[in-house]
Amino acid sequence: MKFYEGADRFLIAVDCVIFGFDDEQLKVLLIKRPIEPAKGRWSLMGGFLEHGESLDRAAERVLCKLTGLSDLYMEQVYTFGDTDRDPGERALSVAYFALINVKDYENKLSSEYNASWFPFDQMPEVIFDHAEMVRKAYRMLKKRVAYQPIGFELLPKKFTIPQLQSLYEAIHQEPLDKRNFRKKIVETGLLEKLDEKEKTSSRKGAFLYKFNKEKYRDLAEQGLLLNLKVKRDPVIKENK
Amino acid sequence: MKFYEGADRFLIAVDCVIFGFDDEQLKVLLIKRPIEPAKGRWSLMGGFLEHGESLDRAAERVLCKLTGLSDLYMEQVYTFGDTDRDPGERALSVAYFALINVKDYENKLSSEYNASWFPFDQMPEVIFDHAEMVRKAYRMLKKRVAYQPIGFELLPKKFTIPQLQSLYEAIHQEPLDKRNFRKKIVETGLLEKLDEKEKTSSRKGAFLYKFNKEKYRDLAEQGLLLNLKVKRDPVIKENK
Repeated sequence: MKFYEGADRFLIAVDCVIFGFDDEQLKVLLIKRPIEPAKGRWSLMGGFLEHGESLDRAAERVLCKLTGLSDLYMEQVYTFGDTDRDPGERALSVAYFALINVKDYENKLSSEYNASWFPFDQMPEVIFDHAEMVRKAYRMLKKRVAYQPIGFELLPKKFTIPQLQSLYEAIHQEPLDKRNFRKKIVETGLLEKLDEKEKTSSRKGAFLYKFNKEKYRDLAEQGLLLNLKVKRDPVIKENK
Repeated sequence: MKFYEGADRFLIAVDCVIFGFDDEQLKVLLIKRPIEPAKGRWSLMGGFLEHGESLDRAAERVLCKLTGLSDLYMEQVYTFGDTDRDPGERALSVAYFALINVKDYENKLSSEYNASWFPFDQMPEVIFDHAEMVRKAYRMLKKRVAYQPIGFELLPKKFTIPQLQSLYEAIHQEPLDKRNFRKKIVETGLLEKLDEKEKTSSRKGAFLYKFNKEKYRDLAEQGLLLNLKVKRDPVIKENK
């Protein structure tokens, strides 16, 4: 028995804003759109929701098709519902964002879509309302990293504190104070110091850390403020 | 010409979490669901998206049908897309939240839906995933009032500082320090002191304020942190 027979029905797209980090810059993964309209233009990776599939599952499917990965950190951003947003046909689009480590997965990207990483602040023109999707996803990412330790998804399994700092600087698009950053991040208890050192970037080397998954879960549940965005002002005052 | 002929199509519901304030408590407006399935049970006000209508427009229409109001503060919360969320038929639902002053508009509510205000922390059982919608909307409201002066939508045009404080206490569901609150809110420059006093709550009376719309726009654009959630701890320390 159908209850809502008379109501209108719509196409639902799912578009993925895939953020990456390559030890230096925050990047966004774009593809050459494989279908008309706007075929061949830069676009987010997307696809249509199918019957029998939840919205989250559709986003995972779309992402997996491009990256080969099924366990990425993903979060729903916003649903875009203007009537004329897609010149092909009326379609709503639910934007998701995902985090991925650029270097670890470079070779796994499907070649079918001509995907390329672009620095977040140097993106080419993208189709439809995809630029707005990227902006909204970026604002969400920035807020998330202040409250949850999600930024770790963008790093390799073992990383140095300077690497972690570069990541946070890339996300916030501004430099952070070094001493303050180290202090704050160590205080969270999220990091486990390893016996290994990373020696490519300096002769002395920097200790590698991995990240404490149990502590992560605790913090994520509590929604603790991980206030890593340390403005330089307090330090300038200290030095006076 | 249709580009996406083969893709599946879906029902899109819009459900509104309507928050109200009555000088004391944060409330949620629920209706008795007028259609099957689950007819007569407590529900958020909702409706289906129609062809030719944007998502935001649909939310406004649904809200206006119940409240008679078309210029309420509204914001999209989240899209719920589980396959079995509506036992009637597969339907996605985009949740919005709206803010409304309970007293000002009590008489304007359409009687057609048997709407009732419930204290946020004493809601009856609601249908489907509507409880989760309310929870997500509440979390968003709490974050919003920390960054934007949106709480004012819940007050009458002229209000006292104690009234404003009650509002913020209702939203945060905890008491705030009086002196600190007054100081912080005056510092924002958002309030304009009027020559009138409100005399029903005390013999001396409390000055009425209205809210500076230009300053509001400035602050909203800058996304300034309106840190009104003043924990009592700092004050306890001061008094030592």
